[in-house]
Amino acid sequence: MNTFGKIFRISIFGESHGSHVGITIDNCPAGLPLKFEEFTAELDRRRSGSKGTTPRREADLPRIISGVFEDHTTGAPITIIFENTNTRSRDYTELRNTPRPGHADFVALKKYGGFEDYRGGGHFSGRLTLGIVAAGVIAKKLILPTSVSSRILELGGNKNLEEAVDKAVERNDSIGGIIECTAAQMPVGIGEPFFNSLESVLSHMIFSIPAIKGIEFGSGFAAARMWGSDHNDKLDSIEGHTLTNHAGGINGGISNGNDLVFRVVVKPTSSTAQKQHTINIRSGEMVDLQIEGRHDTCIALRIPVVVEAATALVLVDLMMQEQRIGRIWKG
Amino acid sequence: MNTFGKIFRISIFGESHGSHVGITIDNCPAGLPLKFEEFTAELDRRRSGSKGTTPRREADLPRIISGVFEDHTTGAPITIIFENTNTRSRDYTELRNTPRPGHADFVALKKYGGFEDYRGGGHFSGRLTLGIVAAGVIAKKLILPTSVSSRILELGGNKNLEEAVDKAVERNDSIGGIIECTAAQMPVGIGEPFFNSLESVLSHMIFSIPAIKGIEFGSGFAAARMWGSDHNDKLDSIEGHTLTNHAGGINGGISNGNDLVFRVVVKPTSSTAQKQHTINIRSGEMVDLQIEGRHDTCIALRIPVVVEAATALVLVDLMMQEQRIGRIWKG
Amino acid sequence: MNTFGKIFRISIFGESHGSHVGITIDNCPAGLPLKFEEFTAELDRRRSGSKGTTPRREADLPRIISGVFEDHTTGAPITIIFENTNTRSRDYTELRNTPRPGHADFVALKKYGGFEDYRGGGHFSGRLTLGIVAAGVIAKKLILPTSVSSRILELGGNKNLEEAVDKAVERNDSIGGIIECTAAQMPVGIGEPFFNSLESVLSHMIFSIPAIKGIEFGSGFAAARMWGSDHNDKLDSIEGHTLTNHAGGINGGISNGNDLVFRVVVKPTSSTAQKQHTINIRSGEMVDLQIEGRHDTCIALRIPVVVEAATALVLVDLMMQEQRIGRIWKG
Amino acid sequence: MNTFGKIFRISIFGESHGSHVGITIDNCPAGLPLKFEEFTAELDRRRSGSKGTTPRREADLPRIISGVFEDHTTGAPITIIFENTNTRSRDYTELRNTPRPGHADFVALKKYGGFEDYRGGGHFSGRLTLGIVAAGVIAKKLILPTSVSSRILELGGNKNLEEAVDKAVERNDSIGGIIECTAAQMPVGIGEPFFNSLESVLSHMIFSIPAIKGIEFGSGFAAARMWGSDHNDKLDSIEGHTLTNHAGGINGGISNGNDLVFRVVVKPTSSTAQKQHTINIRSGEMVDLQIEGRHDTCIALRIPVVVEAATALVLVDLMMQEQRIGRIWKG
Repeated sequence: MNTFGKIFRISIFGESHGSHVGITIDNCPAGLPLKFEEFTAELDRRRSGSKGTTPRREADLPRIISGVFEDHTTGAPITIIFENTNTRSRDYTELRNTPRPGHADFVALKKYGGFEDYRGGGHFSGRLTLGIVAAGVIAKKLILPTSVSSRILELGGNKNLEEAVDKAVERNDSIGGIIECTAAQMPVGIGEPFFNSLESVLSHMIFSIPAIKGIEFGSGFAAARMWGSDHNDKLDSIEGHTLTNHAGGINGGISNGNDLVFRVVVKPTSSTAQKQHTINIRSGEMVDLQIEGRHDTCIALRIPVVVEAATALVLVDLMMQEQRIGRIWKG
Repeated sequence: MNTFGKIFRISIFGESHGSHVGITIDNCPAGLPLKFEEFTAELDRRRSGSKGTTPRREADLPRIISGVFEDHTTGAPITIIFENTNTRSRDYTELRNTPRPGHADFVALKKYGGFEDYRGGGHFSGRLTLGIVAAGVIAKKLILPTSVSSRILELGGNKNLEEAVDKAVERNDSIGGIIECTAAQMPVGIGEPFFNSLESVLSHMIFSIPAIKGIEFGSGFAAARMWGSDHNDKLDSIEGHTLTNHAGGINGGISNGNDLVFRVVVKPTSSTAQKQHTINIRSGEMVDLQIEGRHDTCIALRIPVVVEAATALVLVDLMMQEQRIGRIWKG
Repeated sequence: MNTFGKIFRISIFGESHGSHVGITIDNCPAGLPLKFEEFTAELDRRRSGSKGTTPRREADLPRIISGVFEDHTTGAPITIIFENTNTRSRDYTELRNTPRPGHADFVALKKYGGFEDYRGGGHFSGRLTLGIVAAGVIAKKLILPTSVSSRILELGGNKNLEEAVDKAVERNDSIGGIIECTAAQMPVGIGEPFFNSLESVLSHMIFSIPAIKGIEFGSGFAAARMWGSDHNDKLDSIEGHTLTNHAGGINGGISNGNDLVFRVVVKPTSSTAQKQHTINIRSGEMVDLQIEGRHDTCIALRIPVVVEAATALVLVDLMMQEQRIGRIWKG
Repeated sequence: MNTFGKIFRISIFGESHGSHVGITIDNCPAGLPLKFEEFTAELDRRRSGSKGTTPRREADLPRIISGVFEDHTTGAPITIIFENTNTRSRDYTELRNTPRPGHADFVALKKYGGFEDYRGGGHFSGRLTLGIVAAGVIAKKLILPTSVSSRILELGGNKNLEEAVDKAVERNDSIGGIIECTAAQMPVGIGEPFFNSLESVLSHMIFSIPAIKGIEFGSGFAAARMWGSDHNDKLDSIEGHTLTNHAGGINGGISNGNDLVFRVVVKPTSSTAQKQHTINIRSGEMVDLQIEGRHDTCIALRIPVVVEAATALVLVDLMMQEQRIGRIWKG
């Protein structure tokens, strides 16, 4: 079930060390202007290269093989593929019998009976988020004037982000962090009661991003310590504006016109340079494992653009359900 | 979109002050023994009556109108309805133009153009969770030996739960809390990579429950302050057991055989006895609002059984996808 | 999977001899005026009573238990139930081991392991179409000015319909027929290429109606004997009007603005008064079977209104996908 | 909505004159042996080249870019792409304002506002069925021992198929035909009552194939002239075998273990060498149209393998729903 969305639907495919990863976007409105260059900035935000990120670097050039004609979307499915050029399979083959702690190696082996492509995490690789970021570029254009942004609040428990990364690199270990995402200029009425509440659909999508282990909307977990009379946001305009935003812009599962605000936690990267214990699942022996592959000290550094893309993808789908975005795009 | 699930599918309907609320469960395996009395205990856990809960009391007798024959499920859709007997419509009509802070009144008015049934929250009412609890009774039987339990960790920031409720009642205000849910005896392999990760599907469902504003799996937000080498759970058996459970029983979106553990935050009940400001959306004037209806000081007291039901419903659907539960039930 | 539709979704439930049959309609636009009396005419068209139909008669009074408030739809799910008042269980119990030819008895037994409600066809009963007809009343209002009508072209191979029924009654046997359905004032653009072609979605729904075994659009099977130059409908207006309508109003899976026209074949009623051979599935012996229950000589007489309802339900869903019907109804 | 299936899901993409067409298959069981060469025979059956088919020839080499590793499926999505090598865009540009009779040109222009890729039918092209045939190769292996076959019953009303094609070529016109498809060794219990009846799901898929305008199961339209006592198939074994097969292997929407049998009508190819009338939708003038592109005199010649693939794809999805095919393939 590698598909998300009811009307604006995305499907991802590919493996870390296969020939390509990619995405198909179905039901994108026809007529949206779209050029190759528009993907560059967002894909660059996701790329590695800075301190704290993996030395595996890829060109990450999107190739649009359907659904775009004369620089506009056609209404037919848009498929975008990315070639995997920088693969080093030998890094991973030894790990076959010694599942890496924190990774999907063990569960994949059990679920797919040993037939999974285990190289570099295979289909579980964070590399699959390339397609999500590319689709997010399209989604962000469609939801305008609503705009999605995000920022890292802390890394490794430290609000000085650079310092946090330095310490982790020095310690040969990995760290996680907290990211806050905001959608401004939200219309009222997005989301449904109960099963398709805005929180439901957003969290569904956000937890698709590898390494995310928690989400909270508005005042979130802090609400557990507040009085109702303090937590309730008071309307101060007939358009729905409230003075506070403890609800994170959502009442009864539906956007109330205030900023949509949520925070997610990114766990520390599972691959660390530290030696770790694991078990050899053939022999049953405990072994020491030293992960040799290239990895991110702090994957949280590369996730904000993915969280934004995921958010925009949810919003475009819900806005289309609410008929706020037409089947033929009008700027 | 009042439907949840891919194979084991539930659909809810009804309004707080309409004639009934109810649920239809589609694709329940045939042959599961099911008697009327089996619903009693769980529905009682959801009922009000104790200190901190609303004085609105209902008999909450489930009426099964299809899908069960000679005390067994038939494989056809199971529809269960609950009559609304204790409605007092006059409590709510005055509030039409003065949306209650924290409630869905304002967004419902905008989304449904004034045609929504506004009495007592209408379709947004927590009363709709009756059906979820009833379906949960069935789901809990189907997923055995996996078992779901929950407990309230704190209310109003206080681990002494009774004291917390007393204080809130005294202050005429409302409080929220934090609930932890655990599924024990989980099989390995439940959930899918990316869009149908176990976290994705669970959070989707859990945020369907009114008043929940955050969820975290395993060490959750605390993971943001941990080293990767500490956070990674080390395998110590070839069946997948780990010594720690920072992952909450999930790697790569898939259950790893350890206990599934997550926590949710319940916001303070939006209806409080405190006088609150709001706006008259016709006149634009600021007004003082005193909510007269019957309400819960601490709705979190009634939510654990709903969280468990929601969890069991997700697990039964994913287990059926994984073919761990057959189309004809075998005990 | 007793659910149909992507946006305007219907779910049916119930058994022939259970307490109720019913339907839930999800995502109906808010604000549609709807009164109890509006269901009468269409439900009457479906009722038995005339020559050639079963002597089992029911009041068939719809009870709307959710989603309608002050004579308008609210946007919440609409659940309509019908009590089963005229059940005679003893007619059916003897047939448990001797599956009736042409019926679902044998396949139901195998599929549900003997747990199915076998009384009167149980969940397979044509009585379940009551909900479809009720939902069709709503759908027909929503798709206006598009209007759906149908007529019986022949019964038992005879264009003199009354004569055909007389003969069958006289012979103590059952007959089928051919029904043609037309949707006039169709907009251009309804349906999708490939998997959601208008033919695909319509046929999917139409074959949900018990006893239908074939469907053809436009010139249908006769097209196999035509030249392309004759079959192609020539445009004679820039709005899409064509002089002929061999395509039945559909090109490339999408409505072209001409009348949508299709024909279906209804097989002869499986229950006949004739003595039939079948097998006792316990003993393996061949037995003679005399069906004693009440049944229709010619179920095709009661199906036109069901075909129309099914068609309107498909059209409303596709029109909502195409955003031709809003989320709040405007007359 | 270019996606089909509930568990075994396929999504197609591409345009006739774009860079590629392709398909993604999601939820294919892991562990199925699969080699490149296995696609050759079926893709060859679909290829043009023989008398009566288009002179446009493509190599049609499938490229598997994900989901297969070491010659086995991995459980991750399988994406297969086909390069479009033999495109001649100039054939089509003149036709922009003069919609070809019988084609989707007019409806596509209206539905997609002129942004559709109009070259060679764009996304509506029969070339998209390449992916369906490729997926069918996989589906046919998964459903074994159930096997799907088909044959052309008549072309242009003529049972002498070669003669029919000769006549049409001679006349510079196009013809259609009737194809019968059979699935042998069917298990009992495939399909659901009502909305997911086997007829519903099959017809949904089959009408996705361009040019098909009718379908009938078992005795089909001929049933309208039969007595019920003749039409009813009598059980003559406790495994469900019947002496006749008027039901086409389906009762109550569910397979009964006899051969699944249905017939489809393929309309004459819309592109004919005959001069045709159409309208210039800009000027409103009637014009004579001579289609210059390469086309099939009788597309029905190439459709049997597509019908078989479509059938196998439906069966594999329904068998997985019924848990007759596991999540990990066992030979």
